Amino acid sequence: VTSCFAWKLYVILDRDAAEDRDLADLAAAAIRGGADALQLRDKTGSARRVMAQAARLLAITRPAGIPLIINDRADLARAAGADGVHLGQDDLPVAEARAILGAGRLIGKSSHSLDQAMAAGAEGPDYVGFGPVFPTPTKPDYGSVGLDLISRVISAVRVPVVCIGGIDLATLPQVLASGAERVAVVRAVCKTADPEAATRALKHQLTQFPRASPTRI
Amino acid sequence: VTSCFAWKLYVILDRDAAEDRDLADLAAAAIRGGADALQLRDKTGSARRVMAQAARLLAITRPAGIPLIINDRADLARAAGADGVHLGQDDLPVAEARAILGAGRLIGKSSHSLDQAMAAGAEGPDYVGFGPVFPTPTKPDYGSVGLDLISRVISAVRVPVVCIGGIDLATLPQVLASGAERVAVVRAVCKTADPEAATRALKHQLTQFPRASPTRI
Repeated sequence: VTSCFAWKLYVILDRDAAEDRDLADLAAAAIRGGADALQLRDKTGSARRVMAQAARLLAITRPAGIPLIINDRADLARAAGADGVHLGQDDLPVAEARAILGAGRLIGKSSHSLDQAMAAGAEGPDYVGFGPVFPTPTKPDYGSVGLDLISRVISAVRVPVVCIGGIDLATLPQVLASGAERVAVVRAVCKTADPEAATRALKHQLTQFPRASPTRI
Repeated sequence: VTSCFAWKLYVILDRDAAEDRDLADLAAAAIRGGADALQLRDKTGSARRVMAQAARLLAITRPAGIPLIINDRADLARAAGADGVHLGQDDLPVAEARAILGAGRLIGKSSHSLDQAMAAGAEGPDYVGFGPVFPTPTKPDYGSVGLDLISRVISAVRVPVVCIGGIDLATLPQVLASGAERVAVVRAVCKTADPEAATRALKHQLTQFPRASPTRI
């Protein structure tokens, strides 16, 4: 299992956003394009469907050495043999998920404000998600946290912070300029005409962005 | 943890069926009325909501020595410290749920045909649910299995079989006459004017029913 400190681009394979696309095809394209981690997000599927999908994705991610995180459910992450679970604010506490998953798995936790990010970080996850940076149809209830808080959140949270929410090739420069070092995307890969090229372009920006601050080099 | 062989009446506290009733009040009434086991079923609640509700119910069921089973999710059952999990056909396999829950917890599995009941029994649960015996609005997609299969299912499955689906005080005599020894109810308790009296009347029928077959005595 890779450390989340090595992640720059986290691609979320969202069953709904992908519409009729095969998530395995998207996963393979994202990996070719340079995704550092993938997440399977299927908010409406049964346990059986999620596990079957996870098994197909793991057959692609394992040989590539790319971690596959399962959204929301620690039991499915464990049963599927996935690399970890991503928890929302209304999901299990990190410690409970850790007890279910056992050692050597990754746990992420979403946050939607500076306070939530600090509380999430204190729960001991492997990374904290922060967003939505921009309003996004995937999370219509959350509004957006904006760009201004990003650097404060990164400073305040000990584990890697992954910025998420409406980030795409056009908006990524602002996000990077605001201090973000890692981003997660849904639509910018799942809904694009060429997912591999889109992933590659995002990854290129993430790795090439000039960093002036000596503390970040 | 009691053996499921001791169960006769299993009351399912369904968040939707209970409408605006407090599930803790229903649980207390069902226990006073003689329920042998309770299940928390909340198909739409977040993990956080289910865990909070489970904690309130466990404060009632634990002192009474009545097992509380959580519907669908082994991770929530474990995190809440509940007595077990009930798995549907599309949920985790029994072995996966057992690995998550650990020893000493109860696992039930739903079945909707003789073949499913036999397959469910072979997975090694503590009990098998069988139904819907009658059509029920709680499970509109399943039609009904009818009364005729009950005794065959009970004979074919090694673990206790709990019949479910549209069973109430009026229909229970037919269900018992068809060979059932254990039933689960939702609406017959959750939607009745006096849940304690309803539970007591159901339990009375279940314990008083005359059994002629020597193999069942």
